[in-house]
Amino acid sequence: MKTVAVTKIGDLRDPDPTRRGAISVVDMPEEPLGEEDVRIRVAYASICGSDPQLAQGYFGTEVPIGLGHEISGVVEAVGAKVSTGISVGDRVAGNFVRFCGACRPCQDGRQQFCQRIQDYNRPGMAETVTWHESQVYRLPQNVSLLAGCLLEPTSVAVRIADKTQIRVGERVAICGGGPIGQLALQLMHRFGATDLTMIEPIADRRDLARATGAQHLIDPLTQDQHAEAERITAGHGFDVVIDASGATQAVAGLLDIAAPGARVVYGAMYPAAFEMPLNLSSYLYLKELTLTGVFVSPYAFPRALQLLPTLDLEAMTGAVYPMRDAAAAFEAHLSGEHVKVIVKCNDVDDGGLA
Amino acid sequence: MKTVAVTKIGDLRDPDPTRRGAISVVDMPEEPLGEEDVRIRVAYASICGSDPQLAQGYFGTEVPIGLGHEISGVVEAVGAKVSTGISVGDRVAGNFVRFCGACRPCQDGRQQFCQRIQDYNRPGMAETVTWHESQVYRLPQNVSLLAGCLLEPTSVAVRIADKTQIRVGERVAICGGGPIGQLALQLMHRFGATDLTMIEPIADRRDLARATGAQHLIDPLTQDQHAEAERITAGHGFDVVIDASGATQAVAGLLDIAAPGARVVYGAMYPAAFEMPLNLSSYLYLKELTLTGVFVSPYAFPRALQLLPTLDLEAMTGAVYPMRDAAAAFEAHLSGEHVKVIVKCNDVDDGGLA
Amino acid sequence: MKTVAVTKIGDLRDPDPTRRGAISVVDMPEEPLGEEDVRIRVAYASICGSDPQLAQGYFGTEVPIGLGHEISGVVEAVGAKVSTGISVGDRVAGNFVRFCGACRPCQDGRQQFCQRIQDYNRPGMAETVTWHESQVYRLPQNVSLLAGCLLEPTSVAVRIADKTQIRVGERVAICGGGPIGQLALQLMHRFGATDLTMIEPIADRRDLARATGAQHLIDPLTQDQHAEAERITAGHGFDVVIDASGATQAVAGLLDIAAPGARVVYGAMYPAAFEMPLNLSSYLYLKELTLTGVFVSPYAFPRALQLLPTLDLEAMTGAVYPMRDAAAAFEAHLSGEHVKVIVKCNDVDDGGLA
Amino acid sequence: MKTVAVTKIGDLRDPDPTRRGAISVVDMPEEPLGEEDVRIRVAYASICGSDPQLAQGYFGTEVPIGLGHEISGVVEAVGAKVSTGISVGDRVAGNFVRFCGACRPCQDGRQQFCQRIQDYNRPGMAETVTWHESQVYRLPQNVSLLAGCLLEPTSVAVRIADKTQIRVGERVAICGGGPIGQLALQLMHRFGATDLTMIEPIADRRDLARATGAQHLIDPLTQDQHAEAERITAGHGFDVVIDASGATQAVAGLLDIAAPGARVVYGAMYPAAFEMPLNLSSYLYLKELTLTGVFVSPYAFPRALQLLPTLDLEAMTGAVYPMRDAAAAFEAHLSGEHVKVIVKCNDVDDGGLA
Repeated sequence: MKTVAVTKIGDLRDPDPTRRGAISVVDMPEEPLGEEDVRIRVAYASICGSDPQLAQGYFGTEVPIGLGHEISGVVEAVGAKVSTGISVGDRVAGNFVRFCGACRPCQDGRQQFCQRIQDYNRPGMAETVTWHESQVYRLPQNVSLLAGCLLEPTSVAVRIADKTQIRVGERVAICGGGPIGQLALQLMHRFGATDLTMIEPIADRRDLARATGAQHLIDPLTQDQHAEAERITAGHGFDVVIDASGATQAVAGLLDIAAPGARVVYGAMYPAAFEMPLNLSSYLYLKELTLTGVFVSPYAFPRALQLLPTLDLEAMTGAVYPMRDAAAAFEAHLSGEHVKVIVKCNDVDDGGLA
Repeated sequence: MKTVAVTKIGDLRDPDPTRRGAISVVDMPEEPLGEEDVRIRVAYASICGSDPQLAQGYFGTEVPIGLGHEISGVVEAVGAKVSTGISVGDRVAGNFVRFCGACRPCQDGRQQFCQRIQDYNRPGMAETVTWHESQVYRLPQNVSLLAGCLLEPTSVAVRIADKTQIRVGERVAICGGGPIGQLALQLMHRFGATDLTMIEPIADRRDLARATGAQHLIDPLTQDQHAEAERITAGHGFDVVIDASGATQAVAGLLDIAAPGARVVYGAMYPAAFEMPLNLSSYLYLKELTLTGVFVSPYAFPRALQLLPTLDLEAMTGAVYPMRDAAAAFEAHLSGEHVKVIVKCNDVDDGGLA
Repeated sequence: MKTVAVTKIGDLRDPDPTRRGAISVVDMPEEPLGEEDVRIRVAYASICGSDPQLAQGYFGTEVPIGLGHEISGVVEAVGAKVSTGISVGDRVAGNFVRFCGACRPCQDGRQQFCQRIQDYNRPGMAETVTWHESQVYRLPQNVSLLAGCLLEPTSVAVRIADKTQIRVGERVAICGGGPIGQLALQLMHRFGATDLTMIEPIADRRDLARATGAQHLIDPLTQDQHAEAERITAGHGFDVVIDASGATQAVAGLLDIAAPGARVVYGAMYPAAFEMPLNLSSYLYLKELTLTGVFVSPYAFPRALQLLPTLDLEAMTGAVYPMRDAAAAFEAHLSGEHVKVIVKCNDVDDGGLA
Repeated sequence: MKTVAVTKIGDLRDPDPTRRGAISVVDMPEEPLGEEDVRIRVAYASICGSDPQLAQGYFGTEVPIGLGHEISGVVEAVGAKVSTGISVGDRVAGNFVRFCGACRPCQDGRQQFCQRIQDYNRPGMAETVTWHESQVYRLPQNVSLLAGCLLEPTSVAVRIADKTQIRVGERVAICGGGPIGQLALQLMHRFGATDLTMIEPIADRRDLARATGAQHLIDPLTQDQHAEAERITAGHGFDVVIDASGATQAVAGLLDIAAPGARVVYGAMYPAAFEMPLNLSSYLYLKELTLTGVFVSPYAFPRALQLLPTLDLEAMTGAVYPMRDAAAAFEAHLSGEHVKVIVKCNDVDDGGLA
């Protein structure tokens, strides 16, 4: 079964081709269909900002590493004991991890730390993917398969929103206008934010933010971020600050634009060895900031499904490459030209939706 | 000083004029300006749904009872020790109660139960009102005095929103399209709601709700409310239900359209003797609903000020009566013809805003 | 396989023997051992306050209805795919319901409303019980099998404690000194309560409460409950009130001893048709009480296991009947003489613990 | 009026006497009694761990800097408008800062950021102190003046407890067995903690912790802290970690003993220039820790008053020095010999309590 995979560990941007990581289409076996499993013929799989980090070996270095955890498709087979009502022909999207329900973290209300979280983590940028029924969600009728592959990143944005503990009317800034940042922006725009501000160096991404809810924009390369934040918030600072950039040069400055008592959610992946210097006196003692992060997105999919039809996903679904051009798709992703790059894995009928 | 007041206790709607309550303009003394006080020349004072309940003696029966707790105006004097920067000429709105800061509830983070909450509760539907500096808020530049008199009801809607404990993407229904219901609707529309539904028997108010954020409307008089709720939420029920109707015939049915685990916020005033039958087994045991209410709105004004410029208040600021016609204003209020009726207390320059 | 069951629907206390419900030991088939299942040889099963309600047909009327959801025992078989490390010979206790993990409520963080919650609800007051691995918890070494059968009611007390949203130092009253009330008392004693008060008409149960953490006792039959509450709390009222009585005559009065802003948790079962009159004006508007309830106890077992060794369970494990005397055990339960009555289902070696 | 003050800026431990800071008794003017003020004849004032940081100029360098924010005493005068019922002769303790109630943070439910927080911050290690009525709390009858001076540090421990967001039964570790650490320990012992562990290098302080609630002790100088934490928590880690040490060498290691999803509360003061390296990937992404801190203790005093009589304060009230020996008292404090050192400011009758 054709699958897009990391076939060589390395930085995908490495100028030295002998050290550069590689993405290719390889043949990987189709998983057997367990009694509680669902097999999906994948329509679309979008590239995630974390995929290049997988290429660098963040989660392991044995190649090939199958990719794809943001997918949509059509159900082509269901196991004998599937109980959720999912049926062959259903248009679906899903969660790339399964929460087992039997380990302590699952039973403690903390599925994100499920001890078997990798058991069903199977690559979705492939002809088919076979997941446990608990990972599969029927798409609403008014959501196309193309938009549907963004369900998983939307669930991450929901999880980030949950962690902000926002109160209605609080001031919100988001750093990083990539897919998660843009989705978080659209969500926070719907979730009580005022003075909603996008901090992003790429003009196109700022424009997109403006068009989809940002009231203010900051270009951190040409503007004085702190002075802008003071101006926007009349000296108050932002009650909620979300990092969706993962940029090591950006993360510390967010503590300065946070208001006393603010919550700062580090909602991206960060280089494994990177340490942010945290002044405990200034930020935790005097300002009583709360810092937290997000790993995966449990307890978030049902609400992501509710929200998905309300989002403006046009700008995030324009760059679609056929699976055979996966390497080119990743190059396009790395170029930063598109907010989101999507790989079309099969030609699947969407019942008129697009 | 001319003040609009209840001058006879009784139901303002009583068909028997000998028993009917009465509203008149009377002369009441101006309060002395304390060292921490601010005197406001009142521009606008809006009629609150609770004012007729005051006429019935809900909080006391000694007439005259000065009215008006939703006001805007211009500062005309400040006490010698005012520290907040409020100055003569400032365009302001405010909170009709002062939280003393020294009693146990205030020190426990529960100002709504301040033991001295009535000390500074002075009628604002008057030529001037003298409040403690902590009750007075400078209006944002882009909010007119006319809109500004809705700061206090907006703060109540903020408080209701806080009490919903909504998570982004949850389904929300609001019962009652009066001023609080409409403001709560606009807030919940900005605060994560999906399937946002207004339940209201008056067509004009449903239309207003539709125009300002409601995705669904239910007329409880002609439609099967429960069946509609099932249809709208695909059988799930609403995760958050807000009552802003205060209607005794409506409150119990809201428990049936609430989803398991829902929060039901009774955000209105209710007749003092009314008891809602609450089936503990069905609603608290099997459905684990959470029921709560809202008295006044502490901890909400700063955010209400943030939100006020974002609200669509046009339909709520159209019915303006001069103070001398206060009785007619109350008749208009009781007619239900307007969502909100406003009394103009002075002809105050708004610096070009209207 | 011998199982204790309701064999005739009816009130177990009905003076008319022709209408009185009945409990007997019957033969029921042993469930097959699924791949993810665990079979437990039951040591002890305690009678729950809700069991007599099952006899009245609360959850269905088709007899026999197997009983027993508070059990301990030793694992005698495990399915081929059990992944939690549970092994033959392990001393265990468990949760009588399985949360499927795949339905919407489960994925929304609300397992208590699992749509398949009854699928694995199998009677444990039996020679063996076969449950899904996610329902089975290994007992700590210092907890005997006899004490271990109280894991499930302890988890309910944990869930009640969670729902109180207590802040350290708040005043707490508990109504009802049955097993859940006593366990809730012991937990709240460890969970920040001050002025901890047990309201209970039976002297022995008050004495037990006194011995295990209650600072104050109220006999609602001979004392003026409201006056006592005022005295104990210096007029403040209780910040948290827990009903563990299920007594229809008691539930309304709890609203009067609750402080403004209090949370009132109705933590028992209530007659299906009973309606508590709830004055919205007094309790939800003026006092801003929060009312909620508890159905089952998801997200609570890992912490119940942590707490179990710290509890004083001696008084709750003294009345043990052999399974053949199950009818007598239920009579003893109904007599109210013992806080808890336990049925010994097998003679199981406890490795020296008792 | 005699007042204990920093009379020379410098490290109180500096071996070089020409650079060493100094504490002396100086004469400072008594503040006038405002209309809402209360004058207290101070009985006891305890030395706070932060006092030496004041000597180093953390909050300013203009000497003399009057000291003392943990006091008890007897009211000797009240202003004409005092409304809280505080009367001459009352035994009281208090909060050294006043929250104005009129600034934005106060109105937003965040008094800790009150813009006028220093206005009434007057030294209490003096013959008398004059505070606003909102800062003064009547002591319970069963709390002596000697114990009463620990109300303020108890309120800090309450605030720390609030910020832990503990659920009943969670595992808790506290780093640092000074006064705040010991009080936090006693509070968490009463607030749901299991596996309660004190990390502290001084044996006496570990012993005290053991005697007042700690189940486990770690000496970070001689034991492998991480291995001990693994052993105590069976590999789970601590769900709540509190730093009360302020020790720069200790703070980072706490992130390693925290369980996934844990809350880490930095509850001390830290050197102004110190930066803790925070690995975002390990701690915020993979483990989803939440980090926060505590500045002052709003919303905590009423509950501190409830809890104070339940605490074991004997070991913290044994080292009492007369005011004239204040310098010696500070030397004793710096020696670490006593958990808490107290200065007796007046010989005040305690009505038989001691």
